[in-house]
Amino acid sequence: LTRLSEIGEFGLVRKIQALCRRSDGRVKLGIGDDGALLRIRPGFLSVVASDSLVEGVHFDLKYTPPESLGWKSLAVNLSDLAAMAADPVACVIGLGIPDAWTVETVESLYLGMERCGREYGCVVAGGDTVRSPETAFVSVTVVGEVEDGAETRRDTARPGDLICVTGELGGARTGLEVLSSGEKGSWAASAGRFLEPRPRIAEARHLNRTFGVTSMIDISDGLGSELGRLCEASRCGCRVSAETIPVANEARRWAQAKRRDVFDFAMTSGEEYELLFTVDPVRFSESDRRKEPAGSVPFTVIGEIREPSEGMRILDGGRERPWIGKGWDHFNRGGRESATDSR
Amino acid sequence: LTRLSEIGEFGLVRKIQALCRRSDGRVKLGIGDDGALLRIRPGFLSVVASDSLVEGVHFDLKYTPPESLGWKSLAVNLSDLAAMAADPVACVIGLGIPDAWTVETVESLYLGMERCGREYGCVVAGGDTVRSPETAFVSVTVVGEVEDGAETRRDTARPGDLICVTGELGGARTGLEVLSSGEKGSWAASAGRFLEPRPRIAEARHLNRTFGVTSMIDISDGLGSELGRLCEASRCGCRVSAETIPVANEARRWAQAKRRDVFDFAMTSGEEYELLFTVDPVRFSESDRRKEPAGSVPFTVIGEIREPSEGMRILDGGRERPWIGKGWDHFNRGGRESATDSR
Repeated sequence: LTRLSEIGEFGLVRKIQALCRRSDGRVKLGIGDDGALLRIRPGFLSVVASDSLVEGVHFDLKYTPPESLGWKSLAVNLSDLAAMAADPVACVIGLGIPDAWTVETVESLYLGMERCGREYGCVVAGGDTVRSPETAFVSVTVVGEVEDGAETRRDTARPGDLICVTGELGGARTGLEVLSSGEKGSWAASAGRFLEPRPRIAEARHLNRTFGVTSMIDISDGLGSELGRLCEASRCGCRVSAETIPVANEARRWAQAKRRDVFDFAMTSGEEYELLFTVDPVRFSESDRRKEPAGSVPFTVIGEIREPSEGMRILDGGRERPWIGKGWDHFNRGGRESATDSR
Repeated sequence: LTRLSEIGEFGLVRKIQALCRRSDGRVKLGIGDDGALLRIRPGFLSVVASDSLVEGVHFDLKYTPPESLGWKSLAVNLSDLAAMAADPVACVIGLGIPDAWTVETVESLYLGMERCGREYGCVVAGGDTVRSPETAFVSVTVVGEVEDGAETRRDTARPGDLICVTGELGGARTGLEVLSSGEKGSWAASAGRFLEPRPRIAEARHLNRTFGVTSMIDISDGLGSELGRLCEASRCGCRVSAETIPVANEARRWAQAKRRDVFDFAMTSGEEYELLFTVDPVRFSESDRRKEPAGSVPFTVIGEIREPSEGMRILDGGRERPWIGKGWDHFNRGGRESATDSR
């Protein structure tokens, strides 16, 4: 293993350049200068999104390999692009490196980032590596593009719209709990999902083309919290059917083994990076889902957007469940959140 | 003062939105969604640059007001745009907030950022605020634009080009040393320069239009270090005249009072955010500097780009000075840098 002081900042930048050397017609100048130069196409909007992960808050290197941390720190940003129905172009990385890290740790991290970028068409175009003596952080900014008018946002849901969610929920939280507790057993799908989430880039654009999505947000902080954000931004209420929430098999098994309410568990599971979106019911019923190509996106209708006066309600069979608040509020630890909101 | 847990993340975002509410035709959607939507003009390149400041490494809140930290964290990024001769469009902020900070601290920081953005035409378009329990960090990414072909970069200097630097050097280092030592006396210009540097956005574009700049870089890590980077990237050598280096009055006074070599002091002073650039000597001599409008940019010719075989040399009258290396290598503290390289 190599100490960072042995190769210095220049040496590190050269290693990162070697890891991230790829050509893309949209990138005129990549890593190595004061900024990256991008060719963004006419008729498109540029989308810029940023998410930071902090050691001890968002990741724990005891059970997160640096390569997975690299993948994840880019993937969570690509998920923001997915939520806007945008295609990735490039990203820049602000990496705070603690004194204890070796050159190999940084290389593994960039390797994971580069692997994720390659899979989703996002060039690692630059960034800034700095000393952060005690706590590591990875602050990623992605730039994407979307045809002007084809973007999706969170503040445009309308009463009557159907509420949908892609994939299945609960896996990421299961993965986190399995990894942090060191539990044995077969939880590979959940652990993989937690360590290397898959942003729904192609799915978002496919859904928007097929159904004319009326609003969209990604699930980084739990379905309950994100639906709250979407309704707040759109100034709407909603009604959700608890029985329809899609729960991953491992998550159901884990929650039951731990005697937790499966619904609450899935509803508050963060870092899922599935898409929560709304569609117009008329346009939705006119599109024939069975005619979709084989690669079509699995999703579930879980409720309906309502007038704001109706509030946000969850129905479970005949009875009403209490609304489950934000999945995670960074600055609000204990005291004001519901008991199930434990992340 | 208000604890962050009292208003929660949503409350904080709303306060930040209120501070950063400005309209700009190029921003279709700003703070509040998963990403910001920008209209970048056809015929232009998008420039993306990122710089992170870490508490205890790049700033000390003992003598840096949060508002100045906000200004500076954006200004150092705008300086990267200046180095590419680009105009700012928007920025996104990754802010790591320690548990000890209050709501007012965060508001002051955003106020400084917003004030800087307004002055230089850069909209604060989004970002991510996260907990960083022990150490604060501010990771800013700026997006700018420049006419395709009018960008300036660091790897395009050619032997024979004249080496120039804007403004005067040494002030930022004087400011840092005055502030951190608590020294009394009249050092206001230096302290202001260190706390709230002024990125040379308009100057860069003006210089490029007037003289056809052949290469450019901003001085964040000391003139010696940045000239090293420029020569390395351009695969050139250089010759610099020590006597021509422009040194700020306060810096000269401070260095002399502290019995330091004035030239070494100015050459290794980081965080100056002046521009180091090269021009073609023929085109330079044909432009009549006296005909420049009143607002023209003060700069000094300090040397010449040479063939790589000639190496990097500093001449001081008749004798040769040893080359002064990198102003600051984050991971290389002590041991391999020259004694004067103390930042």
